Amino acid sequence: MASKVRLYVDQPLGKGQTVLLERDQAHYLFGVMRLAVGTVLSLFNGRDGEWDVEVAEAGKRGGALTCLAQTRPLQMPPDLWLCFAPIKKARTDFIVEKAAEMGAARILPVLTDFTNSERVRVDRLQAHAVEAAEQCGGTYVPEVAEPVKLDRLLADWPAGRQLMFCDEALVGAGQVLRDAGPGPWAILIGPEGGFSEAERKRLRAQPFAHPVSLGPRILRADTAAVAALTLWQQALGDW
Amino acid sequence: MASKVRLYVDQPLGKGQTVLLERDQAHYLFGVMRLAVGTVLSLFNGRDGEWDVEVAEAGKRGGALTCLAQTRPLQMPPDLWLCFAPIKKARTDFIVEKAAEMGAARILPVLTDFTNSERVRVDRLQAHAVEAAEQCGGTYVPEVAEPVKLDRLLADWPAGRQLMFCDEALVGAGQVLRDAGPGPWAILIGPEGGFSEAERKRLRAQPFAHPVSLGPRILRADTAAVAALTLWQQALGDW
Repeated sequence: MASKVRLYVDQPLGKGQTVLLERDQAHYLFGVMRLAVGTVLSLFNGRDGEWDVEVAEAGKRGGALTCLAQTRPLQMPPDLWLCFAPIKKARTDFIVEKAAEMGAARILPVLTDFTNSERVRVDRLQAHAVEAAEQCGGTYVPEVAEPVKLDRLLADWPAGRQLMFCDEALVGAGQVLRDAGPGPWAILIGPEGGFSEAERKRLRAQPFAHPVSLGPRILRADTAAVAALTLWQQALGDW
Repeated sequence: MASKVRLYVDQPLGKGQTVLLERDQAHYLFGVMRLAVGTVLSLFNGRDGEWDVEVAEAGKRGGALTCLAQTRPLQMPPDLWLCFAPIKKARTDFIVEKAAEMGAARILPVLTDFTNSERVRVDRLQAHAVEAAEQCGGTYVPEVAEPVKLDRLLADWPAGRQLMFCDEALVGAGQVLRDAGPGPWAILIGPEGGFSEAERKRLRAQPFAHPVSLGPRILRADTAAVAALTLWQQALGDW
């Protein structure tokens, strides 16, 4: 099943537009994928939808593509943030990949009391989000924000945004979502050790925060992220 | 947050019962975790619930534990199978781990037309399911079945079991689940390349098969597994 190559570029796309390739991209398209002049591929930039483009020049260190026609409009995901406490590297990468696939609009690493704060490399995580968008056929790439402390996040919480807060300790329902209704939302996933008592108390005191349960078994943070995104997309999102 | 060690054993558990440890288990408990005689830990075997047990003898090559009291009864997951086409090793491991965490009762690797049939090591996958059950606080371990061809699976399909079949090509709803109702179910996740046209046709012709959509973006097989399990657990399961 050879399918059309699909690539993210951080450049404007529009009818007749020429897209100049950077070295890495040229290497990928002409060295790895072996595309020749005249081959048609797909580009998206997170802003202008998806475009069929044709290889106009192919070189080892660069190249040029010509935009032919838009094949899909920009499809914005719902206004949903995924806030999560960074965990081990592979599982953090996984959460970012899944957030992009599942249609989160923004990804925010959050440092909590029990976060093992290995350094968070935002540029690496952003690259993962791009790759996931390339894979999943999305035309949008969620921004990965700089890590922020939970206290700071809550203190600066934007008016009107609801927060779905996954609390291991709770037994209960998920249709809290439908009751709270649509609009801007965020999901918060704690670290493997859960939230501290102080954090839990603080979260519960926020008028915008809605604790929900994710079933009777304890989920790993990466599983919880996908499960919470699913519940939200199903109840209020674009599924 | 030092928490009690939790271990799966394939031995009977009951009041006063002595559990003899194998070499690997003794190494883990006394060498790695450094438990001493008198320490209390948790055991489960997938049949008799969860038990507090006390270290009676600790040796390098073996040891003995004494069952004190049952701390939790066996909690069976709903009668839900997860059938999936094996993919790359790490992602297959991940699917098995997630299925155990999310509460699948049985895990069936299925070989489809587009399955890159690397050898499936059932013993390794079963060990992953055990580890996930240890982690997630479950008292049940889903069995990982021997791989089976999709045709064979459908030909031998048990009467009365419904099949939720995740079809990329579909646009549509998920409340097909609630309409079809509770009872024994299975979820089928295709390989990265999707199902072949012949498979898709065959699946759709089955009276027990219900195609559902998992949103407008293409999900990787591992993401699709978690998302489908979430939808099912939410609609018909124990969440």
